[in-house]
Amino acid sequence: MTERGAGARGRAVLLGAGPGDPDLLTVRAARALAEADLLLYDALVDRRVLDLAPQASRFFVGKRAGRAAIAQTTINALIVRAARRGRVVVRVKSGDPFVLGRGAEEALACEAARVPCEVIPGLSSAIAGPATVGIPVTHRELAPGFLVLSAAPAIHYRSILSRLTPGCVTVVLMMSVGARREITEFLLGAGWPATMPAALVLGASLPESWSWTGPLGELASVEPPRDRAALPGLIVLGPVVSLAEAIARAAMGPEDVSFAQPLGCEERA
Amino acid sequence: MTERGAGARGRAVLLGAGPGDPDLLTVRAARALAEADLLLYDALVDRRVLDLAPQASRFFVGKRAGRAAIAQTTINALIVRAARRGRVVVRVKSGDPFVLGRGAEEALACEAARVPCEVIPGLSSAIAGPATVGIPVTHRELAPGFLVLSAAPAIHYRSILSRLTPGCVTVVLMMSVGARREITEFLLGAGWPATMPAALVLGASLPESWSWTGPLGELASVEPPRDRAALPGLIVLGPVVSLAEAIARAAMGPEDVSFAQPLGCEERA
Repeated sequence: MTERGAGARGRAVLLGAGPGDPDLLTVRAARALAEADLLLYDALVDRRVLDLAPQASRFFVGKRAGRAAIAQTTINALIVRAARRGRVVVRVKSGDPFVLGRGAEEALACEAARVPCEVIPGLSSAIAGPATVGIPVTHRELAPGFLVLSAAPAIHYRSILSRLTPGCVTVVLMMSVGARREITEFLLGAGWPATMPAALVLGASLPESWSWTGPLGELASVEPPRDRAALPGLIVLGPVVSLAEAIARAAMGPEDVSFAQPLGCEERA
Repeated sequence: MTERGAGARGRAVLLGAGPGDPDLLTVRAARALAEADLLLYDALVDRRVLDLAPQASRFFVGKRAGRAAIAQTTINALIVRAARRGRVVVRVKSGDPFVLGRGAEEALACEAARVPCEVIPGLSSAIAGPATVGIPVTHRELAPGFLVLSAAPAIHYRSILSRLTPGCVTVVLMMSVGARREITEFLLGAGWPATMPAALVLGASLPESWSWTGPLGELASVEPPRDRAALPGLIVLGPVVSLAEAIARAAMGPEDVSFAQPLGCEERA
């Protein structure tokens, strides 16, 4: 039976592409892209990542400004249909497929349709995003752990953060940049100190990334440059943010020329 | 000055090696290993990862059963000294350097010594570990976020988990396998339901990995096989654990022959 023979190769791959820079893909993810027949990708995935699958058809399934997003059930159906036709369908997600990425919904749709499905984890921006600006989500004596929450709907972070002792763990609020005023107001109202170290990180690991660190009391009034406002972003709250300056000073990314020059080896020696 | 000239190449790289499988290294990490002169590694790092730096000297700085660990200040001094001598020192850590890995301490030591230091994030076992057994740390309607905590010292997880509504976020307890009895007792005493879905994951992504899922009430009495008891492990708590069976059934790792055979294409069609 032709259909079954074709199906022997067909499968779904739920692939975490990490925060953006293609160098931060895993070796397994880079290999899966090279084998892809069809890419289903959304707005946050960097073009350089897609270019690692030059032979694959591409289908955009994300949100575009002013247009409704494609329903998750439609995406699930696209994945299943293409895999059944014998294609290697790679669903490319920024970050990790299982961190606020609906990857589990897609894996369950594959399971219901009996389509083989490989999950390739990716660097979550929840950890790698703060790291790119020198913030470790844990640090001895400052944070024995961290809490990652979606900023929408607000009811979740409100009910959880109102119970937590401020600063006892690092809090990373994903997809939160547009809600920074409500978040600040809520936390100050819930008794969080205005001096709590806070950070806003936009487009972590991308060339156009932008960040701010300062006290929570000033977070509401931070205004990213207009051309960066559409970048994916997150908020970090906790004492570990106070380490950012020193760690970023030590950090020397391979292409970080702007940093390497003023603190080059001669000044360091 | 010779010392300064030699120092121009010397630098530290704090490298996250992910949960173990070398395919789960990032492209940047694999490249950094190929350029390393000296590897400082600990007990949890897989041998196949070190083999990606065949020309580098290797120095074990972890704990071995029955012997005291090397002090963190000694490791910091080793990193700084070798980098100052012009060597590319790669500190290889399992998981991510900033997730309970003391990476921030090493970055700050580099900053204090004015040694350039690159941080390469890695897949944290906190997210990728549960994923390998089919557990998504977030899922719509089941978990809007997740909390990662070290199991030692116990005071931290106790004070934080006693305030949290059980099941409102996924909880991942790292380095917790040996403490599973105390953890279970504490949580049941704090009002967590004995039916809360729980998982124990040992050696995630390694060929010898082992896992268990079941209700929290049974976690205390789980006994991993003796030959796996020394593997690094974590505990996951929350409704998302109930998805593990279905997602693992859909998941088909490229080398997962034992799974691919009984649920091959003929049975799936």
